[in-house]
Amino acid sequence: MDAKVMLTEKEAPTKWYNIVPDLPFPLPPATSPSTGYPLSPVELRGLFPEAIIKQELSNDDKEFPIPDEVQEIYMLWRPTPLYRALRFEEVLETPARIFYKYEGVSPAGSHELNTAVAQAYYCKKEGIRRVTTGTSAGEWGIALALACKFFGLECRVYIARSSYEQKPYGRTMMELCGARVIPSPSKETNAGRKALQQDPNSSGSLGMAISEAIEDARAGEDTKYSIGTVLNHVLLHQTVIGLEAKKQLEKAGASPDIVIGCVGGGSNFGGLAIPFLRDKFKGRKVRFVAAEPASVPSLTKGRYTYDYTDGEGLAPMLKMHTLGHGFVPPDIRAGAMRYHGMSPLVSALYQEKAIEAVAYPQLAVLESAVQFLGCEGILPASESAYAIKAVVEEALKCRAEKEKKTILFALSAHGYFDLATYDAFLAGKLEDFIYSEEEVERALSELPIISSEH
Amino acid sequence: MDAKVMLTEKEAPTKWYNIVPDLPFPLPPATSPSTGYPLSPVELRGLFPEAIIKQELSNDDKEFPIPDEVQEIYMLWRPTPLYRALRFEEVLETPARIFYKYEGVSPAGSHELNTAVAQAYYCKKEGIRRVTTGTSAGEWGIALALACKFFGLECRVYIARSSYEQKPYGRTMMELCGARVIPSPSKETNAGRKALQQDPNSSGSLGMAISEAIEDARAGEDTKYSIGTVLNHVLLHQTVIGLEAKKQLEKAGASPDIVIGCVGGGSNFGGLAIPFLRDKFKGRKVRFVAAEPASVPSLTKGRYTYDYTDGEGLAPMLKMHTLGHGFVPPDIRAGAMRYHGMSPLVSALYQEKAIEAVAYPQLAVLESAVQFLGCEGILPASESAYAIKAVVEEALKCRAEKEKKTILFALSAHGYFDLATYDAFLAGKLEDFIYSEEEVERALSELPIISSEH
Repeated sequence: MDAKVMLTEKEAPTKWYNIVPDLPFPLPPATSPSTGYPLSPVELRGLFPEAIIKQELSNDDKEFPIPDEVQEIYMLWRPTPLYRALRFEEVLETPARIFYKYEGVSPAGSHELNTAVAQAYYCKKEGIRRVTTGTSAGEWGIALALACKFFGLECRVYIARSSYEQKPYGRTMMELCGARVIPSPSKETNAGRKALQQDPNSSGSLGMAISEAIEDARAGEDTKYSIGTVLNHVLLHQTVIGLEAKKQLEKAGASPDIVIGCVGGGSNFGGLAIPFLRDKFKGRKVRFVAAEPASVPSLTKGRYTYDYTDGEGLAPMLKMHTLGHGFVPPDIRAGAMRYHGMSPLVSALYQEKAIEAVAYPQLAVLESAVQFLGCEGILPASESAYAIKAVVEEALKCRAEKEKKTILFALSAHGYFDLATYDAFLAGKLEDFIYSEEEVERALSELPIISSEH
Repeated sequence: MDAKVMLTEKEAPTKWYNIVPDLPFPLPPATSPSTGYPLSPVELRGLFPEAIIKQELSNDDKEFPIPDEVQEIYMLWRPTPLYRALRFEEVLETPARIFYKYEGVSPAGSHELNTAVAQAYYCKKEGIRRVTTGTSAGEWGIALALACKFFGLECRVYIARSSYEQKPYGRTMMELCGARVIPSPSKETNAGRKALQQDPNSSGSLGMAISEAIEDARAGEDTKYSIGTVLNHVLLHQTVIGLEAKKQLEKAGASPDIVIGCVGGGSNFGGLAIPFLRDKFKGRKVRFVAAEPASVPSLTKGRYTYDYTDGEGLAPMLKMHTLGHGFVPPDIRAGAMRYHGMSPLVSALYQEKAIEAVAYPQLAVLESAVQFLGCEGILPASESAYAIKAVVEEALKCRAEKEKKTILFALSAHGYFDLATYDAFLAGKLEDFIYSEEEVERALSELPIISSEH
């Protein structure tokens, strides 16, 4: 067969798929950080444009049309290729068939541009002039900066200081797109100033960067906030990945037995998995595996409860698997995964046993990534590498059990913005960090009093 | 129309096109550096596998089949997309239609993998165990390292010290592919030791790196040398670019009035242009523009004469436009263009006025690249950016003259391995350097006595 399956532009999806109405269980609503009661659209107005609020809170609409202007920009790189990893299969000596959906062909290098373009478009359409965001790894910042450039919006990116220093070229990309990049915690916001008072050398976190971006957005009338993962509307936009992959697999005459993605906030995994989960809820037998870092094990060791989404409690509270909003993640290299919580949708799917989760330490993960490079020629982002490690495990199980399963995984981003990580890996400078039960307990003790009762 | 034109794998070319038999003028032969007489195949045996020698010296075969094993690897990223630069056209307010063939989707990030895979394949097939090369920018090194990894060959890359230091992540990529990377001049070879004696702080050059790689290859019986540009067989392999582009333009119902590419050694420009040059020789009116750096103006200011291809006179001599093999290029950022000579094929085409050439200083070039990023979302390699500058000039001419011409250009590589360059550009740390007539004269005075008489 062909090494890759392409779709024409005419075959590209024209609607995003909202799984919430199709869930066989209710999805707990987001709540207000001040009252603890379910969030009203009014409370989100300071943060998001109206169209995004409608998508975020929708329990009824199973589909949202992808606006023409968004489709036009998607066509700069979409539909993305679906590859059969023939050479990787050979090296793993597995009877399994491994397919991967490659989002690294996006000009931002990752899947994150799918939602960035949509969010920037709605902001532009509603007369917004300026967009803020918080990010850790930089990949999301690159995506939003580029999307804002496409629509002529100002972009301000708060980026966790550790990533700012580890990955200088992420900043270069954002600045080339005209964005202003601010290391977080910063002196620009109350939240940042408070954090710097407590620890002038704070390496920052995604939670803190988000707090700063939210405070900044709320302060400006022409300004909205944009988030790259976790929330329902982000997963909605990312379903374009799974919708394409489904058509491509059909073209290849295949159907997945196992769907695998890495999870940080959950958008890349969700985007691939959700269209296939619909099939599962209709009775098809499919397994779903979310792969996370052993150092940030929100699904596998976190508590399923209401928690703040940012470090400071300014943003809506979500019922999710969390390590506690006070969690300061260890300095692992997969920056986009250094977040205390998990998408409420992915969390609920895990809680209801619709999906599984696994956690891996980073060295074994990067080893799998280098092995993949040698076969398929693509250097995965260190985040995507967690999915590859899970694929290796499943493929080896297939070998042991002589099972010819079909595995589909999301290769969410390339690693070319992340070569410092691989450089450190080659030089033997990276270590494993496994987050212990006690440390999780300690972090969880800081959770807000509002629990899962609403 | 669609933003991009794709080909299926079945539509991919199965043969490379050799233009030499179709040239309306004779191509001066390569000569021996020791005798000055036309090179015999025997003299190339220390350097290349037999299949490559046959391709290099062929004056009769108009086509060479692309081996199945090479096609199989090509299919990891080929056929590459042909884009219509709709958003760039809009910003330039030009009536011209601008198409670009994007080779940056290659897993090595550039067109150079097209020939690397072919060369590694022929080495493997002929029982070679080890391949050496010289490179300046690192992109060629990445391509060869990856190709060697695919075929299980050892790879040793001599890389100009300036690039080794300016672009550390190029080395990381090569090492991830299992290659050994050596900053040149090095103490590993006679040529390197000699250069270090003369100048212990030498920043190196492509010519010197090539000398070292050749010396190393000749010393080992199981070792061959590989070159990423300049020679006929490299341009032959690169015709896959133009052959695909031709089919894609036909699908789009278009035919180019102007074909543009950047030139360092000439392989990317040649690869795109050659299949269209065939049409020109049959009477179709097409212009061809090769864009080079004002700081390394081999076509626009060099002399058309026989010169050494490496710094030390170990490699075959070629009749080409050259700045003299002793030329040490200024420290501009487009490392792949820091070479004293030019492909004999491209040189002859220029001499016979089948193609034109232009030279630009780097700051204006990088400005065009950033403008392109803002429209098309792709950050070009600093080399490819020279083509974009030429496109801008032609598009603005079309605007002034209200001409709806069709422009096709080669976007030979992405700039993600080259973010240090853009970082320096944003920080205002780069300067223009225009190589003067006197400096060219001085460099040319070092040319060997053997002139264009053979």
